[in-house]
Amino acid sequence: MRKNSRIVLALDETDEKKALRVVDEVGDLVDAIKINWPLVLSSGPEMITELARRSPVICDFKVADIPNTVRLIAEQAFRRGASGLIVHAFTGSDSLKAAVQAADGKDIFVVTEMSHPGGQEFTASLAERFAAMAVESGARGVIAPATRPERIARIRQAVGDLLILSPGVGAQGGSASAAIANGADHVIVGRAIYGAEQPREAAESIAREIASLRGC
Amino acid sequence: MRKNSRIVLALDETDEKKALRVVDEVGDLVDAIKINWPLVLSSGPEMITELARRSPVICDFKVADIPNTVRLIAEQAFRRGASGLIVHAFTGSDSLKAAVQAADGKDIFVVTEMSHPGGQEFTASLAERFAAMAVESGARGVIAPATRPERIARIRQAVGDLLILSPGVGAQGGSASAAIANGADHVIVGRAIYGAEQPREAAESIAREIASLRGC
Repeated sequence: MRKNSRIVLALDETDEKKALRVVDEVGDLVDAIKINWPLVLSSGPEMITELARRSPVICDFKVADIPNTVRLIAEQAFRRGASGLIVHAFTGSDSLKAAVQAADGKDIFVVTEMSHPGGQEFTASLAERFAAMAVESGARGVIAPATRPERIARIRQAVGDLLILSPGVGAQGGSASAAIANGADHVIVGRAIYGAEQPREAAESIAREIASLRGC
Repeated sequence: MRKNSRIVLALDETDEKKALRVVDEVGDLVDAIKINWPLVLSSGPEMITELARRSPVICDFKVADIPNTVRLIAEQAFRRGASGLIVHAFTGSDSLKAAVQAADGKDIFVVTEMSHPGGQEFTASLAERFAAMAVESGARGVIAPATRPERIARIRQAVGDLLILSPGVGAQGGSASAAIANGADHVIVGRAIYGAEQPREAAESIAREIASLRGC
């Protein structure tokens, strides 16, 4: 995964045309595009391939199934052109290993903690175990919320040099610079870019904020 | 959801033609067809609509995301013709409620325990809490493994008159009659039907096993 602006665009649009328009506008500014099931259900799986022509695509499918189904989902996502796939760890080590094996060198990212209130009910207290499982399984990185930068710092200790991608920047209240300062490699930004009147300017502004932090 | 043969066909084929052939053969014998993401990724979301013309479709998407994404996935699955949707509870009560609200009277089923070894790491010990969350959220039913019929009996106590659907019958070693005797409303059968040389005979044989148990 490239690491230039350190921004991953969360393309949470379900309108295919709008989605492509945003990507045409900011695709070169972001390190990857993250898409989720709603876009696949509205536009079809060909959308993965279409977007992958413009930018690396991370399929945020939050896969949480038995090993054989995980394998099939991973195989198909990568066959369609994805560079990365986001999976859950709570379905166990065997399911996680099935994802890493099926990725065959491509990137698996493991959810540690989630940013919504319900994320506190079960996943928050297990976040560091999930992070350790990511390391053991050979995953490429983890997902940890930018809305809780102190948690990113803890997760960083648990994952060593694995990548940390942090959603929740912008509309959900997280700060890109706080996330990066606490150890995130990439921030995941959605509405603050695709919902902006000038998506390119919005992306550039966040990229500048991150670059200034690094003293570039 | 109809309740005749008490069989739900797990259509774990990723080959669209084979999938449709099996459904044409046994669609009238089963109470519903359960499909998963691999078929959507290989054939496209139109497959939901195509299958729903033949039999009620349960989308086994094991949704595990923040409430807004859960809502979008549910809306799109039902818009495509699904009658039911399978979701996880471990992402919290708010995500579960978002699914039930988006279903708008259609069926949400909540995973309690999973049948693979990794299911013992986190979900098994939480199964009864997940079952209670299914009741509180207004879900239509739960998923509990036929490979552990004694667990079905415990889950039955927790869910009252909610439906229990039990996967793992046949190829994975679970018995249809043991699952039903312990409180399952439907058994979910995959390879034992679609992988059989005579899928219709295989389905009829399981239906007879279940019917004989009920003294019909």
